[in-house]
Amino acid sequence: MAEDVAISDNGYALVPKAEIQSRIERFQKWLASEALDGAFLLQHVDIFYFSGTLQRSILFVPASGQPLLMVMKSVQRARNESPLQEILPLGGRDALPSILADFNHGSLERVGLELDVLPAAQYLWLRNKFSQTHFVDISPGIRTLRMIKSPYEIDQIRQSAAILDKGCQQIRWLIREGMPELEIDGLLFSIARREGHMGVMRMRGWNQEMMNAHVFAGAGGAVVSCCETPGNGTGITPAMPQGAGRARVTRNQPIYIDYGVAVNGYHGDQTRTLVIGELDRTLARAHACSKEILETLEDGIRPGMTCREIFDKAKIIACDRGFEDHFMGHGEGQVRFLGHGLGLEIDEMPVIAPKFKMPVEEGMVFALEPKFSFPGAGIIGIEDDYLVTAQGLERLTLTEQNVLQISGGPAPV
Amino acid sequence: MAEDVAISDNGYALVPKAEIQSRIERFQKWLASEALDGAFLLQHVDIFYFSGTLQRSILFVPASGQPLLMVMKSVQRARNESPLQEILPLGGRDALPSILADFNHGSLERVGLELDVLPAAQYLWLRNKFSQTHFVDISPGIRTLRMIKSPYEIDQIRQSAAILDKGCQQIRWLIREGMPELEIDGLLFSIARREGHMGVMRMRGWNQEMMNAHVFAGAGGAVVSCCETPGNGTGITPAMPQGAGRARVTRNQPIYIDYGVAVNGYHGDQTRTLVIGELDRTLARAHACSKEILETLEDGIRPGMTCREIFDKAKIIACDRGFEDHFMGHGEGQVRFLGHGLGLEIDEMPVIAPKFKMPVEEGMVFALEPKFSFPGAGIIGIEDDYLVTAQGLERLTLTEQNVLQISGGPAPV
Repeated sequence: MAEDVAISDNGYALVPKAEIQSRIERFQKWLASEALDGAFLLQHVDIFYFSGTLQRSILFVPASGQPLLMVMKSVQRARNESPLQEILPLGGRDALPSILADFNHGSLERVGLELDVLPAAQYLWLRNKFSQTHFVDISPGIRTLRMIKSPYEIDQIRQSAAILDKGCQQIRWLIREGMPELEIDGLLFSIARREGHMGVMRMRGWNQEMMNAHVFAGAGGAVVSCCETPGNGTGITPAMPQGAGRARVTRNQPIYIDYGVAVNGYHGDQTRTLVIGELDRTLARAHACSKEILETLEDGIRPGMTCREIFDKAKIIACDRGFEDHFMGHGEGQVRFLGHGLGLEIDEMPVIAPKFKMPVEEGMVFALEPKFSFPGAGIIGIEDDYLVTAQGLERLTLTEQNVLQISGGPAPV
Repeated sequence: MAEDVAISDNGYALVPKAEIQSRIERFQKWLASEALDGAFLLQHVDIFYFSGTLQRSILFVPASGQPLLMVMKSVQRARNESPLQEILPLGGRDALPSILADFNHGSLERVGLELDVLPAAQYLWLRNKFSQTHFVDISPGIRTLRMIKSPYEIDQIRQSAAILDKGCQQIRWLIREGMPELEIDGLLFSIARREGHMGVMRMRGWNQEMMNAHVFAGAGGAVVSCCETPGNGTGITPAMPQGAGRARVTRNQPIYIDYGVAVNGYHGDQTRTLVIGELDRTLARAHACSKEILETLEDGIRPGMTCREIFDKAKIIACDRGFEDHFMGHGEGQVRFLGHGLGLEIDEMPVIAPKFKMPVEEGMVFALEPKFSFPGAGIIGIEDDYLVTAQGLERLTLTEQNVLQISGGPAPV
């Protein structure tokens, strides 16, 4: 843990002051390098990253000098939680220009905005209110800054990984033949909450939603859906076309559990395949291939290797083992990606995909999830979270990578 | 249930064809009245409302003629779920202009967009790609259309209310002295999922997040936070400053449960206060005041009454009983609202607040939640869902409005 952990009035650990200071410093350096006078941050997760509080507010970070956290609600809580010096009440956004003027930011020429997430109406309002200012999209810059994790951040992700392992171990004793996917889903959430999961999962991508768990007993796991992942399941309604469906656990079928939690904002994400009895030979081979891919990457990835090279390495193994048509989905559902960055959002940089030519670097944390989808049979595979170190990959996930045998027992009455 | 319920390949009920047709007809009539050539819908919930499927897509609704549902993923699933005639694959958004031209929508002069939710970068892309088109914000129009619920929609909300009642009855038998709020939260989600909750709750408001339950045992419920609700709790981290905290159930303290679920996209939302033992006299009086407010409104609201009048009626009762400083929060946390529309999102129109002068109409569904917050003691109150009919309010919530006594028993070992 970081040295200067403080506890809020509400009894929970705050983001350390040194952590916030270092983030602001890196951000200001970047703003200056882009010849920006500053940035308005309006998205709650970015605000949390740079301030340590997720109260309703607007954060102005000048290229140099004190950031201004202007808070609509709750000022009291923001002051209690954030180590920033300037935390001011903001009655309404119309007061924004005059507050900025008070702090000698009255004439802003070039200012950054999070255009990937900021709603158009709010963008148009800002453009109208600051008609002399040229606004620039700084989403890629922010996402790049957030991509490299500090020791504090890695520690939070480790805590998430520990909860996921507990959940996975406990659920092995709870699953019975005949149990509905929906019930397993509920139990996984219950365990996670009791162990300290903050309650929601976050994605930056618009229109995207992340459930706490995807639980698929058999064929439903191979159904194609809208998400950019190899398996999303049917869900129980077209209004939420992903996640557990109406199926129940049967013997000798894969029970696929993709499970996520977040501790202090930081996500962990793991997938394991469980079975009562024995897997079909093809599925067992595909699972072994998933394990082979992860073992190869664990041994082979070094800082400097590109995301594309990592994807290719995995794909070659999948093809060699005869699973090309099933790798990361099948048919319309096949996706060209192998993993995703993890942090305050579950779709952070880097994306381990052929389109991404950036090299991986020390301090990146990402999930790798080689999975195989078989129409009519289900989906199978492993997902683990990794930290890039100078020596290579460190696995943060604690659960063993094998197919997890469960005894099952009779269906509950 | 509507007559023409169809079942998808995935085994779940689809939105009836007549329902989609009627929504499109009302929308096209409105578009024509606004002199718009059509509208691009990009938000997933709006797309679901007008198409019956929530696959990744762009929906173009012309002022007259067939809507075009252009689908990135999954085309197969969209075709299986949506009764729209024109469902086309969309390789990438760059193909949008040529598809529109193919359907004689090559020259669009005035087109509607959902500017309240559409990210700025996507808005700027559209403005650039359709440089001859004038774009207009149609969010208020869409929200107004969606405000009046059809019999099909009301039926879905009734199903949600039934799940909430089951959850509330079951949790009464599960709560024990010493049980952590987090554990109750997990149990409520488990019950909801088993009974058919689709797994997520949806809000339209940017940066806003909705948990399945807010469970507060005692003082934590009165802590102020960022949400526009009277009580949000502490949460267990500044990264998610709402919901259950680290408190545990004790005797003679209010156990406040604000509980939501969604069936086929449609939300239900109810709050009940439970107690092991007896409530403090002030809290019991405040709860009685909450009940009195709801009973008065149930008897008194008629179509034509304004949202503001409803709020005022409630506030007068709260003041008469001496609870002015506690009504809908206290101090910085006091909010000027009493209820919110319910549908595919939990923050729909109308908002029952002094700022809203619109009259309530037949077919509106909203939650009313007179609540009282006492620093150091907790939050108390009732929240129920109502349908406006020609005769007045029909309560959709099934659970009795009294404080729910629970036996509690000893803490589990």
